Amino acid sequence: MAEAPSTRVILVQEAVLDKNQAIGRSNRAMLDADGSLAVNLLSSPGSGKTTLLERTLRALSGQLTAAVIVGDLATDNDARRIGSTGCPVVQINTADICHLDAAMVSRALGELGRPLPRLVFIENVGNLVCPASFYLGEHRRVALMSVTEGEDKPLKYPTLFRTADLVLITKYDLAEAVEFDDVAALRAITASAPDAAVLRVSAKTGLGMEEWYAWLRAQRNKEDLHGDTSRGSSGIP
Amino acid sequence: MAEAPSTRVILVQEAVLDKNQAIGRSNRAMLDADGSLAVNLLSSPGSGKTTLLERTLRALSGQLTAAVIVGDLATDNDARRIGSTGCPVVQINTADICHLDAAMVSRALGELGRPLPRLVFIENVGNLVCPASFYLGEHRRVALMSVTEGEDKPLKYPTLFRTADLVLITKYDLAEAVEFDDVAALRAITASAPDAAVLRVSAKTGLGMEEWYAWLRAQRNKEDLHGDTSRGSSGIP
Repeated sequence: MAEAPSTRVILVQEAVLDKNQAIGRSNRAMLDADGSLAVNLLSSPGSGKTTLLERTLRALSGQLTAAVIVGDLATDNDARRIGSTGCPVVQINTADICHLDAAMVSRALGELGRPLPRLVFIENVGNLVCPASFYLGEHRRVALMSVTEGEDKPLKYPTLFRTADLVLITKYDLAEAVEFDDVAALRAITASAPDAAVLRVSAKTGLGMEEWYAWLRAQRNKEDLHGDTSRGSSGIP
Repeated sequence: MAEAPSTRVILVQEAVLDKNQAIGRSNRAMLDADGSLAVNLLSSPGSGKTTLLERTLRALSGQLTAAVIVGDLATDNDARRIGSTGCPVVQINTADICHLDAAMVSRALGELGRPLPRLVFIENVGNLVCPASFYLGEHRRVALMSVTEGEDKPLKYPTLFRTADLVLITKYDLAEAVEFDDVAALRAITASAPDAAVLRVSAKTGLGMEEWYAWLRAQRNKEDLHGDTSRGSSGIP
């Protein structure tokens, strides 16, 4: 008897996720061996991931080495913007695939070369659904929601927000112009991601950015990532 | 010999899309039989689909009957907002599925009851990737991009924009505040969707909304949708 199509899809999907998980663990082992913290940034298209990274990389420059792996269906616009900071960047074009997977990130880590830098940002494809299911080997997940998107996004996309260690409310300089309801947003975040930290930032004005950098440094401490001592590091940046 | 997992995924995906296409055609036949124009709205999360519909439904009320089918992973927030206009609305919760498919829309059309209203809006799941591949039986596709998302979205998500009949640039009241580059945006839209019409709107201030209503009426004329004459209609609204 023929299997129902829906059942087949689910079985194949599980096999794909199992394989992805295994490659993700291998990415993580490589990152850990080099004392590199990987941060997976997830959000809608246009929430400000690239602008956040541009300012962050400039601010951290000279303090700790960093690189970016950036996923888009098409174009290398983001890689060019990030490259202008002087930071190594690998652009992944996924064609019609709606998320990064661990195998894509594995190849990108290979292109960055060993030892890996202290901080590897992974800018995922702009999508609040599919990237949530794909572990890339990251230590932390950061979900961005801009004040222009509406306060209820964490309720409408709970799977992604549930996996976030930090929620960044971005474009906060526009909060007043769009009549952003901070209390409603916090309520929505707490409902979907009760354990996540929350920061309000504007990569345009600099608002909240110091707290974001402090959060990044704290994650390196928590993970006790001392890195490759042959690089002469004194430990935590 | 075992089939490679990637090959199996592609084969299953094609079968899923073929089945979806067949159900989409059957939805379309039902819509045509009732003289109902279906418009599929696609965008990022938070581009303003629901706010656009709220204002549109209030403006068209008394001129032509309309209903909304709205897709979200979770919550009935959008259905409640749209329901406040007095318009029939069916909320579909997709759980972890990143798009509406034709079977979901078929069930929703069944809930709306026959004859179908003159205009059926389908508010897809907020996602600029996956919904592009799933034909729902619609007559027209409208892609929304808000001025806050950045001008390059049509280049970065070409598959979805390529299928659009109309691109609505939304939240245009914020264009100045976010230093929106209209020329760059038009260049990006033209590159990905050379045949699409383009309108600038603000559902908050009303800017451009009359042009959007005129576009909707024109699509009904083009499709020659005279509808069910037993309803005593004089034809085109």
